[in-house]
Parts: sequence; C-alpha cells; structure tokens
Amino acid sequence: MAQSGKRKFEAIGNTGFSTSNNTEGGRLTRKDGSINLSKTGLPFWERISLYHSLLRMSRGKFLITVLAFYTVVNVLFAVLYLAAGVNNLKGIIPANDTLSNFEQAFFFSSQTLTTVGYGHISPSGLITNMIASAESFVGILAFALVTGLLYGRFTRPRAYLLFSDNLLYAPYKDGSALMCRVVTYKNNHLTDVEAQVNIAMHITDDNGNKVRRFYPLPLEIKKVNSLALSWTIVHPLNEESPLYGMTMEEIRDADVEILFFLKGFDDHFSNIVQQRFSYIYSEMVFGAKFLPMFHRSADNTTTILELDKINAYEPAYVPELSKSVVIV
Amino acid sequence: MAQSGKRKFEAIGNTGFSTSNNTEGGRLTRKDGSINLSKTGLPFWERISLYHSLLRMSRGKFLITVLAFYTVVNVLFAVLYLAAGVNNLKGIIPANDTLSNFEQAFFFSSQTLTTVGYGHISPSGLITNMIASAESFVGILAFALVTGLLYGRFTRPRAYLLFSDNLLYAPYKDGSALMCRVVTYKNNHLTDVEAQVNIAMHITDDNGNKVRRFYPLPLEIKKVNSLALSWTIVHPLNEESPLYGMTMEEIRDADVEILFFLKGFDDHFSNIVQQRFSYIYSEMVFGAKFLPMFHRSADNTTTILELDKINAYEPAYVPELSKSVVIV
Amino acid sequence: MAQSGKRKFEAIGNTGFSTSNNTEGGRLTRKDGSINLSKTGLPFWERISLYHSLLRMSRGKFLITVLAFYTVVNVLFAVLYLAAGVNNLKGIIPANDTLSNFEQAFFFSSQTLTTVGYGHISPSGLITNMIASAESFVGILAFALVTGLLYGRFTRPRAYLLFSDNLLYAPYKDGSALMCRVVTYKNNHLTDVEAQVNIAMHITDDNGNKVRRFYPLPLEIKKVNSLALSWTIVHPLNEESPLYGMTMEEIRDADVEILFFLKGFDDHFSNIVQQRFSYIYSEMVFGAKFLPMFHRSADNTTTILELDKINAYEPAYVPELSKSVVIV
Amino acid sequence: MAQSGKRKFEAIGNTGFSTSNNTEGGRLTRKDGSINLSKTGLPFWERISLYHSLLRMSRGKFLITVLAFYTVVNVLFAVLYLAAGVNNLKGIIPANDTLSNFEQAFFFSSQTLTTVGYGHISPSGLITNMIASAESFVGILAFALVTGLLYGRFTRPRAYLLFSDNLLYAPYKDGSALMCRVVTYKNNHLTDVEAQVNIAMHITDDNGNKVRRFYPLPLEIKKVNSLALSWTIVHPLNEESPLYGMTMEEIRDADVEILFFLKGFDDHFSNIVQQRFSYIYSEMVFGAKFLPMFHRSADNTTTILELDKINAYEPAYVPELSKSVVIV
Repeated sequence: MAQSGKRKFEAIGNTGFSTSNNTEGGRLTRKDGSINLSKTGLPFWERISLYHSLLRMSRGKFLITVLAFYTVVNVLFAVLYLAAGVNNLKGIIPANDTLSNFEQAFFFSSQTLTTVGYGHISPSGLITNMIASAESFVGILAFALVTGLLYGRFTRPRAYLLFSDNLLYAPYKDGSALMCRVVTYKNNHLTDVEAQVNIAMHITDDNGNKVRRFYPLPLEIKKVNSLALSWTIVHPLNEESPLYGMTMEEIRDADVEILFFLKGFDDHFSNIVQQRFSYIYSEMVFGAKFLPMFHRSADNTTTILELDKINAYEPAYVPELSKSVVIV
Repeated sequence: MAQSGKRKFEAIGNTGFSTSNNTEGGRLTRKDGSINLSKTGLPFWERISLYHSLLRMSRGKFLITVLAFYTVVNVLFAVLYLAAGVNNLKGIIPANDTLSNFEQAFFFSSQTLTTVGYGHISPSGLITNMIASAESFVGILAFALVTGLLYGRFTRPRAYLLFSDNLLYAPYKDGSALMCRVVTYKNNHLTDVEAQVNIAMHITDDNGNKVRRFYPLPLEIKKVNSLALSWTIVHPLNEESPLYGMTMEEIRDADVEILFFLKGFDDHFSNIVQQRFSYIYSEMVFGAKFLPMFHRSADNTTTILELDKINAYEPAYVPELSKSVVIV
Repeated sequence: MAQSGKRKFEAIGNTGFSTSNNTEGGRLTRKDGSINLSKTGLPFWERISLYHSLLRMSRGKFLITVLAFYTVVNVLFAVLYLAAGVNNLKGIIPANDTLSNFEQAFFFSSQTLTTVGYGHISPSGLITNMIASAESFVGILAFALVTGLLYGRFTRPRAYLLFSDNLLYAPYKDGSALMCRVVTYKNNHLTDVEAQVNIAMHITDDNGNKVRRFYPLPLEIKKVNSLALSWTIVHPLNEESPLYGMTMEEIRDADVEILFFLKGFDDHFSNIVQQRFSYIYSEMVFGAKFLPMFHRSADNTTTILELDKINAYEPAYVPELSKSVVIV
Repeated sequence: MAQSGKRKFEAIGNTGFSTSNNTEGGRLTRKDGSINLSKTGLPFWERISLYHSLLRMSRGKFLITVLAFYTVVNVLFAVLYLAAGVNNLKGIIPANDTLSNFEQAFFFSSQTLTTVGYGHISPSGLITNMIASAESFVGILAFALVTGLLYGRFTRPRAYLLFSDNLLYAPYKDGSALMCRVVTYKNNHLTDVEAQVNIAMHITDDNGNKVRRFYPLPLEIKKVNSLALSWTIVHPLNEESPLYGMTMEEIRDADVEILFFLKGFDDHFSNIVQQRFSYIYSEMVFGAKFLPMFHRSADNTTTILELDKINAYEPAYVPELSKSVVIV
C-alpha cells in the first residue's frame, strides 16, 4: 500500500484496466459512463456494430439518418426509372424538362417504396416493372429494418440513473466517509441494486517505479433491495479503507480516480441495467454533507423526491480533516 | 428492538426506504404494488418514459391514444393538403364548401398514411406530392411504432400473481404465525420463486425519538421450486420474530407495514417477474386460518385450483392471542 | 422415512405440490412437461393469457386462427359497406344479386385491410370513406399484431430436449442407480445445465395416515458445463437415497413419481430454457442399461449423435435386484 | 493423473464430452467455437430450427434466400393468375404470347404481395379476386416474418470476441504459464467476464487402457469486472496444474485440447454472451510472450487498443523449458 508502511492492502487485477502507469491517457471512465478508450487495427466497419450505433444515437440524429436514407433511396430509384425511359411510367406528364421528369419519377419512387401505390402513375415494360418490383421489395425490407430499429431503441435497457456531481468527504458516525448519491429519475424502479467501488491510485512501488494500482473500497451497504428513493453510497474512511489517514494533498498527488459500477434489475425493461461513473480529485468536496432530497407531501399521503436537489450539500465539520479542512 | 428490552434485533438499512419517521407519507407500497412516491425537480418529459407509459396503460386507454394519434395526424395533413391547394388532389370533387374539401383531404390523408393508396385521388404538383411523400413516410414510421408498442405490451413481463386480501394471524404448529397466500391466476407457471418479507415499524429509539425501523421477517419456506398450486407464505411468530410477544394493540400502535417482495422465473415470458405488496394493521385478521383452495377433480385425473377461494378463511384459536383474541 | 425405521430423510415442502394424500388427482407432471392442474373461479378471459396461448398453439392451428380472423374481419366490413350503400363503392358492378354485391364488397374490404388498395374500387361518401379509413387503420393494427405474434412464436425459448421414455434401474459402480438420459435434438446447444430431481412417495406417517411426501434425490453429477452430447442423469441407489433397500413391490406400492426439472442457458435463444418431466412406476425398467448413442464418424473428423437411439437399452444384471430382478 | 505417479488430479465428468477414447473424432471444439458434432436419427426438419438457421446465416446468404423466396412466391401466384384466366386481370394487355402474359401476371403478383397495388391492373371475377385476396394476406404474413427475422438477426447476442491464434508457453513470475488473450473488437463492452478452462488429455488409465480425461486448469484471474482492454488469460504452470512438469513431447503425445469458455454481460445486447474456443498442440508456442497491444494516445487523453496486435509476441526464455525450449 502506498501511504503507510504498516497497513497492507491487496491490489486487485481484475478491473479490466492496466496497472502500468503510462499506457492509459486521461481519466479511465468518461463522464457519460463509457470507458475512455479507442480501438484501431481493424477496418471501421468491422470495429463498429451499425445496429447498436443506430440504437445509441440521439433521437434527432436518428430521424435525420432515416430521412436521409429515404431520400437517397428515392433519388437512386428515380434515376433508374429515368434511365429505363420516362415513357414507361404511364400516367406521367412527360416534359422536355429533365427536372420535371425527375420530380415525377422521384414521387413515383416514393409511392412504390412506401407501398402506397396510388396508381395514377404505373410502371409498364419489362425493365421498369422489374425496377418497381425490386423497389417495393426494398421498401418492405427497409420498413422491417425501421420497425426493428425503433423497437430496439425503445427497449434498449438503460439505467436512468442520476448521480451527484461531487463525491463528498463527509462526517460519518464518529469519523468520516466518502459519499455520493444516486436516484432513478424516470418512473422506473430498480431492485437488487449492487454497487462496486474501486479506486485507481498512482503510487511508487517497492522498486521505486511509479505504477497504478487498484483497490476495492468497502461500502457501508453494498446492495439495496430497492432503489425507490435516493441512495447515498457510503465508503467509511476507517482502517478498512486504503485512503484512511491520507491527507487531501496525498489524495491529490495519488491522482486518484474512484470508479463506481452499479447494477440492478429494472422493472421497465425487466432486465439488468448498469451504470458506470467515476470521480477524480477535482470532483471531491472536502468537509460537506448532503441535504435531504425527499419529504412528506403536504397531505401526508405520499413521499416527494426532489430530483433537482441531488447535488444539494452544506459544509460540515469532519474530524479527520480538522487540520486541513477547507470549507467550500 | 421496540417492545422488548431483552431481545435485540438488527434493523436493516437496505430496503430503499428512509428510516426517518416523518419524511414519508402514507403507506410505503400502494395496493397495486407500486412504491408510494412522486418525483419533482425535472421537467415532466424527462421524468417519464413515454414508451413505458404506453406499455403500462390499460388496453382501452391505449387504443384511444392510438386512435387519437391517427385522427390528429390525418387532420394535420388534411390541413396541409388544403393549404397546398385542393385542386392539386386529382380526382377530388372540388366544392365551395370547405368542410366537403376538408373531408376529402382527410380521407386522402388517411389513404396515404395507411399506405392503402386507392389512387382515385392522387397528388399532383411539387408541394402536394412532397406532402404526400412525407405522409406515407410518417405512416411507415408510425406503423413501426405501433408494431413495437403492441409487441412490447404483450411481452412485458408481469407476475400474474393474486395474493390474499388479508394477512392472517393463524395457528401454526404449537404456536402461531402470520400467513398470506399467493397463486398465479393465468395459465402461466413460476419456478424458483423467492419471497422477501420486511416489516416497517414505528418505534421509540434510545434517545426517545420516534423513528421508523425495518426488520426482516424470517419465513418457514423462503423459496419454492415451483409455484403451481397456491403458496401460503408463513412467518412463524417465534423468538426469531421481532413481533414475538407483541399484543394486537402494540402492533397497531407501531403502525406496521409488512412488505412482501416476490420474484420468480415465469415460463410465459421466459423472464424474471416480480411483485410487491404489503399489509397494514387494518388488513390483518387475528385468529383465523385459510381454507384449502384446491381439490382433486371428480374423475381423479387432475387437480382443480379454485382461484375465487384465495381469501377464504375460518376463525381459529391462536394460543398467543388467547387473552386478546377477537374472532372475526 | 417410509420403508425403514432407522434411516431418516427430511421431507421437503418447497416443490410447489401439496403433501396431502387426497387433494391431487393423476400424475403431477403430464408427459408434455406441464403441471397437471386446472384453474377455476375466475372468468375464462382472466384466467388465460391470449397472447401466450397464441404463442404455444401448434403451427397449423395458428395459421387457421389467423386466416379465420382475416375472413371474419372482411365479412364484418363487407356487411358495413353494404349497409352504407353499395353505390358508394365506386367502380363496383352493382347487381340486384346480393351475393354478387357482397362478394365485391368483401374483396374491396380485403384490399383495404391489407392496404393493397388497387383503387379500381374506391370509397365515396362520408360514411363509406369513414369505414374504409377505419378498416385500413384496423389493418395496420392487425398487421402489427401478426408481426408481433410471429416474432414471439419464433423467439419463445424452448428447451428442444429429448428425454428417454424410461427410467432404468441400472448397474452403477459396485451397486445400482436410477438413470435416464437427455439430449438436445436441434442444432442448439445448452450450457450450465442443472438437474433437480425429487421423488413423490405415498407413505404412512407416524399417525398412521396415508400422506404424500417429497424427497430430493441426490445425483452423481448435478450440473454439466455443456450439453453437447447426451447426458445420462444418474441417481445412485446408495445410503443417501430414500429408495435404498426398497424392493420393486415397495416402489410400486408407494405410487412414486420421480420429478425431473432441467434448466440451462440456450445459445439459440440466448436465454434460460427449462424442461420438466417425470417417471411413474410403469415407466421404470428394472435391470437394464443404456446403449451408447454416439460414435466417431467414419472419417474420424467428427462425432455422430444418433437421436433415435435415445431409448436403446439392454438387459443388465443389477446386484440389489438379484432376487427380484425381472429381465425385460 | 497421467504423467506423475505422485500428484493426483481429479478428472471431471461434467464437460459435456465423453471420456471414452474412441468415440469422438477430430477436435472437440471447431475454430469457429461450435461443438464438433453432427446429429442423426431424426428427419432434417425436426433436427433443425429454421428460424435460428436464418439468424445465423451470413448476410449475403440471407438476402439471397429472402430474394429467392420473393421470386418463387411471385412465380407461383403468377401461374395461378394465368390458370384463372388472364382476362380476369383488368388492365392487362392480353397477348397470344404466354411469356408476355406471364410477365404481366408476375408483376401484378408482386404489386399484390408487397401491397403496393397500383391498380392499373386489378383483379376481377371470383377466383382471381380470391387469389389476389389470399396473396395480399400472404404478403402481410411474409412481411411480418421478414421483420421478425431482420430484428432477430440484429439483436442475436454475440460475443464479438477476438482471441489470439496461439496459446503461449510463457515466462510468469519465477516460473511459467500458459497464456492466450482476448479483446472485444466492436464498440461493445463486457462486464463480469468469467473464463472456464479445461484440458482434454489422452492418458493410459490404471488398467492400461487409453482413455480421455478432462481436468480443470486453474487461472491466475478467473473473472474480470470489465473487459475494456485486452485480457491475458493466465494458467500458471505450478503444482496446481496437471501439466506441471510435462515436457513438450509429453504434451504432444497426450493429444491435448485446451478448451476455453468465456461468458459475460454485454452492454450492446444487455444480455449474457458466450464464446467457446480451444487450442491443440500445434497451436501452442513454446517460449514466447505477448507484446503490449495498447498505448496512451499522443495527446494523452485516451487509450488506444490496437486490435491487429492481438497475435503479436516475441521469443522469451522460459525456465521450465530451458532444456527442451524451441525458440520460434
């Protein structure tokens, strides 16, 4: 263990991150919960899952992508119809103007692709009929794709978890503890929620080399039956903690990143959802405690959870920090 | 522990509810199994998952919502077609009467949105063609949405569990026990069903403050391999129970809520389903036992489970209650 | 324990079946793996999950149901169109013959319901247009339903397990064992497969009453990593077994039913699948052992699993049965 | 245990493979991760799950299958329309040329099947109307099928795991170890990844018979919280290993196959994914160690994982192999 010759902590090697000091850049977990990592060495299309990218894309981007796809396919087929001869589109008003012809071919294409098929324009001749037959087939496949994508987007399990911006170094029983808190912000509900917390620290090993080591941080409560209200996750700073006795300066110098991983069963998705987040030194607040974020309703019939108070805290005296405490 | 200075029970802090006496209003779990809680502090649209709300809505409400959506979209597009000029809808019978024009535009819109596209009315001109092309595209997306919603509604895992209205204070071996019972009421079947039971009690802590504490209630059988027939969940009122030795009055004064949480694997959904329910003092029946709710069929080839007998009980002598027992 | 005053076995109460001797009729588990049980006391529609019934129905029945639905809906709308006036269907050839009118209305209806909408017949007038608009909307909802049902049918997790018709009383090491065997018969593959085996026996309890008791049967191997080839499930008849020392007559008189429950992760469905089956006395074969059901391919490059040999066994001498053994 | 009279290892029987020496042909696990096995004894259609075969088929094959299906159905219905009389297709240009009639019937069929229904050709007469009505119904069912298949293909959980071509016999602490490594090659992420490693060895049993035995291989780390970067799976060759003290020749003669089974929770699919792979003697490299496959980005803000370096290794001195080591 880094800061104390006496207490020994077992570093763990199963966090999925490397322990060498200089291979990883930046923080390990980005603020959106993804791992800070990029991959090379395979072509883009093999490195990406198109389906899942379309699932994770924002709503706006997704609609634009689908609309762009619809337009491009219509343009392509319109060009094919023109190539096959505009006179093979019965009902069209032929014009010397290519743009007007294209326009009409484009709308015939869209009527075919969506299978609306009014029929005031209809295909004739082998080639044009084949193109139209192919296009309506493409339309059906595309429709199937869109159905699957929309369904996939709605049913993709997400944790809908809100966590506090800061990790507080707060009073706890007779001593102190690190605390953050989480709530579910939608009308969903998690059960059997488990938190796993590890700390990444840069220390000097026995050979004098700067290395990164990972240590688990024990929690007051590791698993809750139900995440209905807010959950304040508490890591007591006692002798079980690798941070016990460290000063603020030592914590800063160790370039810590405290990695949270939450997992629970969500009743919306009837599936396991998970969320990853982390705090670095600059996101820690020393000498503070959270304010309550729920209260009884005025008519005393229900409980109100105030989601906008997730970050509300007030200064608090912390014994261990008595000398170095900075009231924020 | 509340009522006895000698026996000590460990209160638990992982129920997801708070232990402070005056922050929560009403019962913790509503009769429909949901948590009695509302959330504020975020805009409505961020606090709600539209998809899951449409999934949980009753069948009637859902149909009305979809029908309303269909009508509104048709009205909107009908207005657009009128704005683009009713004469651009070939095949329409133009009238001076705006209502008649609107009517025809509305039906053309519905033919486009559903992609039925008879074609006796057809779009002409750039603008009207673009509107029609957009509408058939919207139709396809909407259709995809409805497909996903209907599928989501059917496949949303639900427990299909019926539980007794009352919690009985019943004779059990040489003593007594709290008992409720559950059955699956559809042609489904649960396996590996586990029950978790906690009690919320309002007690006076060592400092003389009124607080709420949670205690687990041990069960005779905590997990059944299969929930084929009915399951009578039994909490023996012995020395392992925080309720042991309490009188009816003490139970009432502690403002108890007994929280049940059942979880099992359902063969209909091939997924884990869960159900939450609770009993308060007024739903307890003192001195009663359940009547059997299944019997052999007349031809002795199968077992009949009578779902309407789930609440059937009869008065029964309970030793612990001998003095205070109220036969219902 | 029934047949021996000395050895004591703990009966279990978590099988989901009752232990009273005379409430259940017939065998507990039907040969198709379902629980032998029917439910009453709620209206049919509340007792059944329509969606899941449509999922479990045979392919033929399902197609007939869907076809019948299609026909009935078309007939209903055809009647509505006739009621609204056949002359409001433009393009129809009106006839004095009601059958001919109905025929044409029926086909117009089918063109609307499937959204094919050729348009040689088209609606006119407010009422007929409203009916047509409603029907195409119904068509879209129905289509969405069918899509969901077909997808649900294909993806419904099933175990695709074949198990032997008989339970063999076979030689095993120096003694004997009960053995059955299972294979997966499709191109699927199970991992982490676990078997749970219980026996139901009718015995005379200490008060001289006939009761049913359940005992777990310990297995040689309870869980296999992979169910690639066949798995012979072995219950050794040693001192751990409640059947140890019982004669064939005693087994018959105890009216045993040996209940198997298998559960594993299927790579087809990426989900847990489960299968239940049971053997009664008449399905046991005393003094027999299974013949191998797989062998190396002729070119020595793969293994051949012969599914039709699942029931292949040959007579075998079983020490414990030496006196009473009946070679089949 | 085979090669050492002193050390005893317990062979395991729950791998799903048989332990007899001569029933299985070739390697147990194919390079694509599937079990090397074929099944006979049931008709082809009962042995296969058509749906899952369509799911696992390559993208190209799948498109060709769907296109072939589309064409065949259209041809069949075209033949029916011709049989019902080409003159019942109003709007067609009848010809003495059968090919021309077939062509027009074919395209009418495709317009009906896809429900595009332009209407320039329309059915007349009872029979032709019935065929068209049936075809549009088939079209809707087929469409539903395609939607389900496409969705099923996209959402079928796959591990997206890349594993090294070779198993290295590498230096490890003061001794040696067997090592391979795995990465996820898409933008997915696995959590709670567990590896299970068994070895199949052909040995001579106590009776002098050649048999196959399976032994578990203990791992340095059996489970990682997160598979973000690469994971080098390490089996230390110490006294816990059945391979400890074996020479390369002994390993070769034992005809070993080292079976890996990985299982984890994938955040793309929100489901458990699994991957099986194995190494035989010829895929082992003696005296080598892996080169790092990730490094810090130039701007020090992220980590780069180089997927094409998964197989990169360099020769390395291994103490145990000092006499027999072959530097590759």
